[in-house]
Amino acid sequence: MGKGVAWILSVGNELLIGRVVNTNAAWLASKLTHLGYSVRRVVAVPDEEGDIVEVFREALGRADVVISTGGLGPTPDDITNLAFCKALGVEPVVNQEALRMVKEKYEARGYPLTPEREKMAMMPPGAKPLPNPVGTAPGILYEHGGRVVVLLPGVPREMEAIFEGYVEPVLRSRGPPVYFAEQVLVVRGVPEADVAPVIREVMKMDPALYIKSHPKGFEVEAPLLHIHIYASAEDRQRAEALVEAAVGRLKQLLIAKFGNRAEISTTQAPR
Amino acid sequence: MGKGVAWILSVGNELLIGRVVNTNAAWLASKLTHLGYSVRRVVAVPDEEGDIVEVFREALGRADVVISTGGLGPTPDDITNLAFCKALGVEPVVNQEALRMVKEKYEARGYPLTPEREKMAMMPPGAKPLPNPVGTAPGILYEHGGRVVVLLPGVPREMEAIFEGYVEPVLRSRGPPVYFAEQVLVVRGVPEADVAPVIREVMKMDPALYIKSHPKGFEVEAPLLHIHIYASAEDRQRAEALVEAAVGRLKQLLIAKFGNRAEISTTQAPR
Repeated sequence: MGKGVAWILSVGNELLIGRVVNTNAAWLASKLTHLGYSVRRVVAVPDEEGDIVEVFREALGRADVVISTGGLGPTPDDITNLAFCKALGVEPVVNQEALRMVKEKYEARGYPLTPEREKMAMMPPGAKPLPNPVGTAPGILYEHGGRVVVLLPGVPREMEAIFEGYVEPVLRSRGPPVYFAEQVLVVRGVPEADVAPVIREVMKMDPALYIKSHPKGFEVEAPLLHIHIYASAEDRQRAEALVEAAVGRLKQLLIAKFGNRAEISTTQAPR
Repeated sequence: MGKGVAWILSVGNELLIGRVVNTNAAWLASKLTHLGYSVRRVVAVPDEEGDIVEVFREALGRADVVISTGGLGPTPDDITNLAFCKALGVEPVVNQEALRMVKEKYEARGYPLTPEREKMAMMPPGAKPLPNPVGTAPGILYEHGGRVVVLLPGVPREMEAIFEGYVEPVLRSRGPPVYFAEQVLVVRGVPEADVAPVIREVMKMDPALYIKSHPKGFEVEAPLLHIHIYASAEDRQRAEALVEAAVGRLKQLLIAKFGNRAEISTTQAPR
């Protein structure tokens, strides 16, 4: 089931000193999951060539889809595009289409094309620049040997705009369609540990099913659990039916086991 | 400079499907940075034994301090403590002190000690359980060959309480004291690419200095930059003086280069 393994690479010192919360990774992880990919790693590394090269090499050996964010801008520590070339073992070239994109943005305001700006057009030979409708640094799409690697800027609105405009369609078209369904069950009054065997039992229904409980209250004093039920399948109806069935079975087993002690309700999955 | 390299490992499927934003990692990264550690990786992995074992082994080979969050609870997919033992190549044992902690929490409310709950007391031989003042799963502290490994629960308020109560004092006491200073300069009216050479120049002042610009406005239309200036040093005064000096030099060079075009102000660093 699914379209393959995805890794998300987050480049930027601000993530490693805790200045910035990695919302980009969560946004991308959700997108990739709903597109049918299985995200196996999110790795944040500093703006250092050695670290970026290393993590790209690891990802290239393990993932079908690799998405990076950060390090495409004009400042000296924006080096993700160059480090990616190094990870591939190729010399970066100035992509003429990318250069045109960058030039247009600056020239419209009368700014010259400095070497710092030209750097934003450098990528591996054969890569495709992705227009940035919001900022100046183009994204980079590199397909090779059945793998897709996408480099996106770190500014969230730029990253999101490029992903939705130019990456999502590419990823959606690869492999069979995959749909993702989910529901949340809210259970009050029963500690997580007592619910665990029930979850384990229900998960046996189907390998495409995944159930996880998240404690929201205080385990012992006032237990409150959110149980997330997920399924993916090649058609939407099957995914939704599987989640429905699992929710029904969960309720049934919880009531059989805890009776009135368990207060069960459903809540809308946040998306 | 600094106390050594830290890796943060975040365990949990919810991070890889984008259900949860990894605020734990940002919180820990900020704490570790201010304690003088250099965080080089934040790696999120799913609740799968193979993945957790792999990332612990990588971290053990590379970091002086490894902190994990998630996977210490009573449900079947909480397996971080067991996977950590596997990464070390040791058999997990029931730690009697931890078992007492877990037992007390449940017995106070009349809940029995099930195998799921006993699992929360399992750790490598020689590890030290860390009391959880908020929830039920103890943290785990493991010191070996000069390295410190800490396993914390994934629920933020539990993770924070254990870290502040029992981990921070241990990390603070290791190696020389290190202080971290920071200021933010706000620059309006000049594109990031034009500020880049100035930043590069000022960073040459001292290797303990790190400066990074973050574009907040629209690079070309209405450029707005936050320039973060950081320094770490073995005494607080030196760190602060270095940041002061860098801020002064930055202002001077920006005014020399851009004159009235650049609108410069300072803002309080958020902590």
